[in-house]
Order: sequence, then structure tokens, then C-alpha cells
Amino acid sequence: MCKTVADLTAVGGPGLVWHFPHSVAFLGPWQFYTGYCLIVSREPASELSQLGPNRAAFLEEMATLAEAIEACFTPHKLNYELLGNVVPHLHWHIFPRSANDPEKLRPIWFGTDKAENDPAEKARLQTGSIPPAECVAKLRAWLTANGAPTAS
Amino acid sequence: MCKTVADLTAVGGPGLVWHFPHSVAFLGPWQFYTGYCLIVSREPASELSQLGPNRAAFLEEMATLAEAIEACFTPHKLNYELLGNVVPHLHWHIFPRSANDPEKLRPIWFGTDKAENDPAEKARLQTGSIPPAECVAKLRAWLTANGAPTAS
Repeated sequence: MCKTVADLTAVGGPGLVWHFPHSVAFLGPWQFYTGYCLIVSREPASELSQLGPNRAAFLEEMATLAEAIEACFTPHKLNYELLGNVVPHLHWHIFPRSANDPEKLRPIWFGTDKAENDPAEKARLQTGSIPPAECVAKLRAWLTANGAPTAS
Repeated sequence: MCKTVADLTAVGGPGLVWHFPHSVAFLGPWQFYTGYCLIVSREPASELSQLGPNRAAFLEEMATLAEAIEACFTPHKLNYELLGNVVPHLHWHIFPRSANDPEKLRPIWFGTDKAENDPAEKARLQTGSIPPAECVAKLRAWLTANGAPTAS
């Protein structure tokens, strides 16, 4: 994850959404949740408490990205999760949930768990209602129009 | 949930941890994750974007509570989750994870899902290594010592 952040910061990439001052946002793989993003701390830390005076800015960047997702994809609900059980480097998952999802009352992890051993289910959960490049473009346009902060 | 917040605000309760200016924190039911807390927005909102200028303070209160949990129970990792799929009123779950938990790489929801139809598993996940009253006392002591803000 640290290497991923470093790479994204250096060269960008098709899934890159935004270079915030304290984090990097990119489109996540499970685009059944259309607009699903990850936002990763630039600072190598595993808990919010380790960010010191930058903690508030990191949380504000997460909330700004969430606002962009909400504005662009009008989800039924957002799920905000910072887990780090497998990859402890601080990263938020922001999952837009749809009112049409039969599993909308449950965390998304039941679906992705099933997808691990079911290629058809995996393909279904990786495919969104809007092409990834279009999702990225919509998010970037909103963040630009709303003056989201960028890395210097 | 709105009624729960109103009740806790009015009368307190044994699980009540802290009255923050913008939220109320209390011990959660799944104390296998010893120190697990919920922190609920006082303002009736379902997304962070609805909090307007109070959003940063609400997030800071969540992070302060997380810091208290970390200091009091020294978990292997914290999981921070704001879902609202069932109860949309803004509330964070903060789950301390243990290095000894065989399920430590997965979100806690697989365990609580199984517990719904398994009374023994439910009892196991509701029982912590420290009695709830002691958890609350430790958290309150830390928050007091560290000058956590309180509701006026």
C-alpha cells in the first residue's frame, strides 16, 4: 500500500481521482458500488492518533471526497470504513450504497467475501453502472468546481 | 436511535461514556472487542455532508474517543465504521481488534452475523475481558485527564 501511494503520487494512473495535501484518492475495484473510492494517507501511519496535527485535515479530505461521491452518484447511503486489518496503512473505503441492492442492509463485505471464490460474482461486483473513467471524470469535475485542496 | 440519543442525553445510563458537544459516546454490545464504543451524532443527520460547519467537530470527537480506546485497551488495530444501513442516524462504530482473534483479518460483521442465530456465539461476542463498568470508568478517566470537550 505504501508503494501504491508512492507510485500514484509519482505517476498518477487511470483510477487516480485526486491528490489531496494529506491523502490520495482513487477509484476502488468494487464498482458494483458505483463511485466506490479509497482515500489513502500520504503519511505512513496505522491509526488516526499517529497523524498528530494533520489528523483533522486527513478527516476533512475524506469527508470532502465523500461529499463528491454523494453529489456525483446520489447514493441511497454512504458507508465510511477505515479498517486496516489486512493492510494497516491508513485508508478509508467510501462505498455508495444503492436502494436497489437486495443486500443494502448489510455491510458490503459479505458480497466481496463470496466473490473471492466465485469469478462470476467477482465480475458482477467489479462492474458498475457507469464506466470507471467516467466516474473519475465526474469526481474530478466536482472536486475542481468545489475548490478541493490539492497537494503542492 | 434518535430516541436513544435523547434518552442518554437526558438521563445518562451505565453504558454512557461521554457527552461530547456534538455527539454522545457509549459502550457497544459486542464486548468481545473489549472497549468497543458507539459515538452518535446529536444532530439528526444521515450523512456527514449534512452536518455543515459542525462536521469537523463531530469527526474530531470520533477521533478523540478512538484515541481514548487505544490508550485504555491497547488494541492490535482499530476499525472505524460509519455505515447506517439499518439505522441511518449518523453513528460511528469503533472496534478495537485483538492480535489473538483468529478472525482479526476480517471485518467483525461476519462474527456478529453468525451470532444472530447462535445464542452461545452471541454470548461469547457480548462478553469482554474487562467488565463493562470498568471499561466505561477507564475511558471516562482518560477523557477527563486529556481534557476532552463536554456538552454545555
